Amino acid sequence: MASTSVPAQSLQLRSLIKSSGELEISLASVPTPQPGPDEVLVRVEATPMNPSDLGLLFGAADMSTAKASGTAERPVITATVPERLMRSMAGRVDQSMPVGNEGAGTVVAAGSSEAAQALLGKTVAILGGAMYAQYRCIKAVQCLVLPEGTKPSEGASCFVNPLTALGMVETMKLEGHKALVHTVGASNLGQMLNRICLKDGIGLVNIVRKPEQAALLRAQGAQHIVDSSAPTFLDDLTNALEATGATIAFDAIGGGKLAGQILACMEAAALRTAKEYSRYGSTTHKQVYLYGGLDRGPTEISRSFGMAWSVGGWLLTPFLQKIGFAAGQKLRQRVVDELKTTFASRYTREVSLAEALTLDAIKVYGKQATGEKFLINPNKGL
Amino acid sequence: MASTSVPAQSLQLRSLIKSSGELEISLASVPTPQPGPDEVLVRVEATPMNPSDLGLLFGAADMSTAKASGTAERPVITATVPERLMRSMAGRVDQSMPVGNEGAGTVVAAGSSEAAQALLGKTVAILGGAMYAQYRCIKAVQCLVLPEGTKPSEGASCFVNPLTALGMVETMKLEGHKALVHTVGASNLGQMLNRICLKDGIGLVNIVRKPEQAALLRAQGAQHIVDSSAPTFLDDLTNALEATGATIAFDAIGGGKLAGQILACMEAAALRTAKEYSRYGSTTHKQVYLYGGLDRGPTEISRSFGMAWSVGGWLLTPFLQKIGFAAGQKLRQRVVDELKTTFASRYTREVSLAEALTLDAIKVYGKQATGEKFLINPNKGL
Repeated sequence: MASTSVPAQSLQLRSLIKSSGELEISLASVPTPQPGPDEVLVRVEATPMNPSDLGLLFGAADMSTAKASGTAERPVITATVPERLMRSMAGRVDQSMPVGNEGAGTVVAAGSSEAAQALLGKTVAILGGAMYAQYRCIKAVQCLVLPEGTKPSEGASCFVNPLTALGMVETMKLEGHKALVHTVGASNLGQMLNRICLKDGIGLVNIVRKPEQAALLRAQGAQHIVDSSAPTFLDDLTNALEATGATIAFDAIGGGKLAGQILACMEAAALRTAKEYSRYGSTTHKQVYLYGGLDRGPTEISRSFGMAWSVGGWLLTPFLQKIGFAAGQKLRQRVVDELKTTFASRYTREVSLAEALTLDAIKVYGKQATGEKFLINPNKGL
Repeated sequence: MASTSVPAQSLQLRSLIKSSGELEISLASVPTPQPGPDEVLVRVEATPMNPSDLGLLFGAADMSTAKASGTAERPVITATVPERLMRSMAGRVDQSMPVGNEGAGTVVAAGSSEAAQALLGKTVAILGGAMYAQYRCIKAVQCLVLPEGTKPSEGASCFVNPLTALGMVETMKLEGHKALVHTVGASNLGQMLNRICLKDGIGLVNIVRKPEQAALLRAQGAQHIVDSSAPTFLDDLTNALEATGATIAFDAIGGGKLAGQILACMEAAALRTAKEYSRYGSTTHKQVYLYGGLDRGPTEISRSFGMAWSVGGWLLTPFLQKIGFAAGQKLRQRVVDELKTTFASRYTREVSLAEALTLDAIKVYGKQATGEKFLINPNKGL
């Protein structure tokens, strides 16, 4: 039972890596789906470009080789995937993939069930994939109904960043740590984490890469800010780790020496209070989780911090599976309750699907620079 | 109540790192300890040089700078600790430290308690530190009485290698893996692990660094041997990982690319049977534990294996603490039961304390090359 205002065909963004080693991003015209009895059709009005989306959007392609073709309405971006990285793309080769983890919009059509009908006209947030599209058909139960008066742009980022930030704090508690480190302190996620920690009274060491990022966080009340571009970085970090007792870090950078430096500084902080020497280092367990890969280069760990340490991947979905549905719901409810305060996101640019597929735009959001966050409105100007 | 055959003074090996950045290894003449009521005095007759001992013996010193001085009976070895590594030595600076984790010998004096007296004349094995000495005083309860007819040289390595090998298998089981990888397959420990896995029917992927090491393991019945010097190494490893289903590895090398390569090959093996593509990689958790550092250089991890992975330190003592005393006793009993078969160690040279402190000897055992294992007999020739 589709509403009359819904077009028969609509646009969906697709990312395709061909076996020839070429990435192709384009807009496909697809039949607008018809909701089944338990489903609703959402007109997507706001969907953020998170780093996790860019992973699927660009794959392993080298975006410095990107070229534009097609038309202004139907742009096509192509780029080359380095041959040595094609192995890691094997699972997606020659499959045209929809993109976009989360977003928000208006329910414009609904199936026959009571639950679906109840959502007609509501503004909802969705975590479901394939959100870079004008319309998204989804089960009614998967919709998070936003409070009256919430704009789609305010509810676009209800899941990925808020649940990741909350997941970090929960992981810290579950694994027996008392404070945490975040390596992209001034990012959208970092600012959110800072607000959570300030509100909940949790020690947070914010690592930033520039003095202006430190200033931004300071203005937001952050208590421990360490600038990795400062010559005193390692000493500053060790002092902040000692002051907070942080022994777990969440790192979005991944490549380079930072993870190892954090472990070394955690060990130095632990040894300041150690009572006797052990050649295996302190018994304090030191953990770094890599949850992103802004630097795709190798992680270089200079092991100078004993044996009680671990570096590993951290991902939201397995974390939510681990804590279970009820615990996850508590986190989701907190996000809705504090959507315009703790979990507010800010975007630097709102673009249409076609505007997202321009070399100029890619140059900006592809950098994943702090402070540059794009929001796609697939129905912009329509 | 000391026996009359015990000298008043005896030799103990000492390792000292001075605040000036100099390592000094020497033999100290110390008063031979007198056992208290619950203690015994053991004349140490066999104590192995394990990689874990060398960590304390040499500290962070660069042994290519080693110099010999002193006399043949009282040699002194000095070497330079690179300045950037002095920070990691802070806990031991200017403390003259005894060395030697484990060993075996004869109980030559005993305290007044029944437990201590019962050990007089017995051959015992000890894990207690400070074993590179002619005499070691220790609680009677800490002695593992060796079966009648066991020579000290046969019982010298009852703890570190056997419990480490068993600990790897137990960790594999505890963490839900079904087979394991070992990166120094042909080492003393590796051969032991191979015997355990053959006996217990556990899949083991042995990584070796030379064809002759592969041949040695093959002669001992090892089923999966992968030579990292072969041009087909990564494919061979992936095949062996697929065949065994190994998703946990124990690595003694630490530095370089190996840990990351193992994770990448585990992922490649997992993806061979994956049903659908995920940009975060397989959901198979892949674990590499570093339990040694034969290569002291940085661990270089090229992340191309999704997010379900972890690299961390693994150490025997915390493992034993984690499983508890009763579970640990079961492992110790198995070692005694299979001391001359599964857990037999082989040594290439038996040296006195003074002979261990020569540049020629250090050049050999300091390399920690497979097949070169030294046994110290602190009472050799006496």
